[in-house]
Amino acid sequence: MSENGALPLRGKVLTVDTMNANVKKVDYAVRGPIVQRAVQIEKELKEGVKKPFEEVIKANIGDAHAMGQRPITFFRQVMALCTYPQLLDDNKFPEDAKNRARRILQSCGGNSIGAYTTSQGIDCVRHDVANYIQRRDGGIPSDPDNIYLTTGASDGIVVRQANANTVLCTLDLYTQSQPVCQVQSRQCIEDVIRFAVKENLFLMADEVYQDNVYAEGCEFHSFKKVLFEMGPEYSSKVELASFHSTSKCYMGECGFRGGYMEVINMDPEVKAQLTKLVSVRLCPPAPGQALMDLVVNSPQPGEPSYQTFIKERTDVLSALAEKAKLTEEILNTVPGISCNPVQGAMYSFPRITLPERAINEAKAKGQAPDMFYCMKLLEETGICLVPGSGFGQREGTYHFRMTILPPTDKLKIMLNKLKEFHQKFTQQYS
Amino acid sequence: MSENGALPLRGKVLTVDTMNANVKKVDYAVRGPIVQRAVQIEKELKEGVKKPFEEVIKANIGDAHAMGQRPITFFRQVMALCTYPQLLDDNKFPEDAKNRARRILQSCGGNSIGAYTTSQGIDCVRHDVANYIQRRDGGIPSDPDNIYLTTGASDGIVVRQANANTVLCTLDLYTQSQPVCQVQSRQCIEDVIRFAVKENLFLMADEVYQDNVYAEGCEFHSFKKVLFEMGPEYSSKVELASFHSTSKCYMGECGFRGGYMEVINMDPEVKAQLTKLVSVRLCPPAPGQALMDLVVNSPQPGEPSYQTFIKERTDVLSALAEKAKLTEEILNTVPGISCNPVQGAMYSFPRITLPERAINEAKAKGQAPDMFYCMKLLEETGICLVPGSGFGQREGTYHFRMTILPPTDKLKIMLNKLKEFHQKFTQQYS
Repeated sequence: MSENGALPLRGKVLTVDTMNANVKKVDYAVRGPIVQRAVQIEKELKEGVKKPFEEVIKANIGDAHAMGQRPITFFRQVMALCTYPQLLDDNKFPEDAKNRARRILQSCGGNSIGAYTTSQGIDCVRHDVANYIQRRDGGIPSDPDNIYLTTGASDGIVVRQANANTVLCTLDLYTQSQPVCQVQSRQCIEDVIRFAVKENLFLMADEVYQDNVYAEGCEFHSFKKVLFEMGPEYSSKVELASFHSTSKCYMGECGFRGGYMEVINMDPEVKAQLTKLVSVRLCPPAPGQALMDLVVNSPQPGEPSYQTFIKERTDVLSALAEKAKLTEEILNTVPGISCNPVQGAMYSFPRITLPERAINEAKAKGQAPDMFYCMKLLEETGICLVPGSGFGQREGTYHFRMTILPPTDKLKIMLNKLKEFHQKFTQQYS
Repeated sequence: MSENGALPLRGKVLTVDTMNANVKKVDYAVRGPIVQRAVQIEKELKEGVKKPFEEVIKANIGDAHAMGQRPITFFRQVMALCTYPQLLDDNKFPEDAKNRARRILQSCGGNSIGAYTTSQGIDCVRHDVANYIQRRDGGIPSDPDNIYLTTGASDGIVVRQANANTVLCTLDLYTQSQPVCQVQSRQCIEDVIRFAVKENLFLMADEVYQDNVYAEGCEFHSFKKVLFEMGPEYSSKVELASFHSTSKCYMGECGFRGGYMEVINMDPEVKAQLTKLVSVRLCPPAPGQALMDLVVNSPQPGEPSYQTFIKERTDVLSALAEKAKLTEEILNTVPGISCNPVQGAMYSFPRITLPERAINEAKAKGQAPDMFYCMKLLEETGICLVPGSGFGQREGTYHFRMTILPPTDKLKIMLNKLKEFHQKFTQQYS
């Protein structure tokens, strides 16, 4: 205080200048300025502001349920039973759902999903995850001690924190292939692994789309399996963290924030630090852990829920395969848009040709040209996409990322609106 | 690769030397070495290793359900309805529970709790939180735009990340008062605020125990309320983030990882950075957000669930008040243990007198003397506590933190085991 007892005039303690400089560097395109503007526009629409459209279509992020996809019945039944165990006496629930719920509850403190779990995640869930990975990878062993349950795959950020600098290069490598939605061939994964060895990198594999493979002749290869098939000189050395989650594939359960990470060849001292680091957040959400368990331990032939489960899963995946094809077909009818086959995941990543004048106008505004394009698209049509510049595309090329998740009829409308916009935009800036 | 095609011999890419140095500095007593050893001992017991006890009692952390506390029926009913909306047709669920579930689902994308929410949290939940705070603080306005829903209160770490250095000092201040479990008086809070002004600190208030006040004549004062009552020269300047969660109080729903943070007087640019930072993790778990909503929007007089809700809440809180008293009474019968009244929260923080020889032996082992004590206690009795040295106690004094959560009969047994151990320990090292 000053001598007369009044408080000294002062500015903020915490400002962008005094805050942690690393925070300023963080940039996340999928929820960047376009999405912030989309949220604003939604508010304006609610308040009655007139726009040339009636709703915002968020095709920026793989959010299946928001686009009308129905949850898998079995998963939600087990989750309801875990949440409100009085329902275990209800004969409306199938026995296999009840068994799964009982097993999960038995491994929770006080048999409640409201107890903290261990920081690395519920024991029986980590065992189930390890068994799933081992089955998936044709018997290559997986150790529950190497499994960390996470708060969705975006939790990979925890590993990045531990990892300081080395990872960023790998991430670029990934992001250059991920939004393209082409299924990585075995050969391509081998090349990435060899590159990691050469450049001394710690590999992080985002494998959340492991069930989303649509194109014929393509199949999912896990980095771990390829690594082990390259022989012990690779499999005993290369450090790898791979991620899966409940948010994508046929389940699309994003809100639960469930996921796992498997670490391979991690230095034991680093692993101890990682374990300490995750303990600061106490534990991942127990409902997300339970849901992850169901994904890796789904209904088996002979169990009462098996038929329904398979039908629901197949329906979701074939609808996605159809929409992948539809998207490619419609977009390729537009001069100036070129779309590769959507082989997997849930996005298209078409390349767009932009008129010189649009590029210059964007640059004059300090915007990436495809950001300029996507922002205009949002304002005129309500369609929210992510500009390719958010993913590290090749210099001088322009793209956008769009999910294929809207229901078929809506997807068609959206693609045709996009077509119309692109033609108008091209005309306007030619 | 070397010239003959073999891989070069190499060490790990990621080691404690190459990793982010800040990670190594993180230290979290509540889940530190004692707890790691406790988990190990549990494993050994399961494998049949003989010990002088049959189970580990985890009195290190406020994990109510793990200690047998029952969840609040209304909360779990609404959560089950949100999870499996088919139950909305079930006449076993009360109408007020159904109404809450419908309202939450209506503000979720695609009416599913499986959709991502906005990064700051579901709109209607943030509004309910703001209304709750405003009611709680006697009408001092709260703006939903200043509310961030979180993944439990431990998410406060996100703010610390943004905040770099300035906060650590405040945290010390807090941790010195929090484990003591004395309810901070209005005067004490005023002093902290004045101190923050003088030292130019950003204040972080952990207010997760706001319903856990047992001692007569004590009441909960929020930092925000005190700040505003100190007049505009304080309330317009002091930067404050305060936290609440679903994990403590009468609900004890730790596993859901629900919580909120309210920021006051935050620099708008910093707020934009914070919003960006939370968006990297996409969104807090939707079930935790829904549960937080129920806590701030619990059954009201006249609603069908009101009576049961009030009874369940009262039962939990009066059991805790009783156990607080019991703990104080039993511990104070032990020579060398001195326990202040447990006025609030769910811990006791007794001071212990340790024989010189024990202190020397601990120091020779490079251990804090109360860590040495707690580790021995764990090995001999299975009781898992947190040494006071983890909380920043005054130099030369020794304490432990113990929850008062075990059921009364178990708590008595535990306290008597502790008494016996302390007497034996004192004798052994005298």
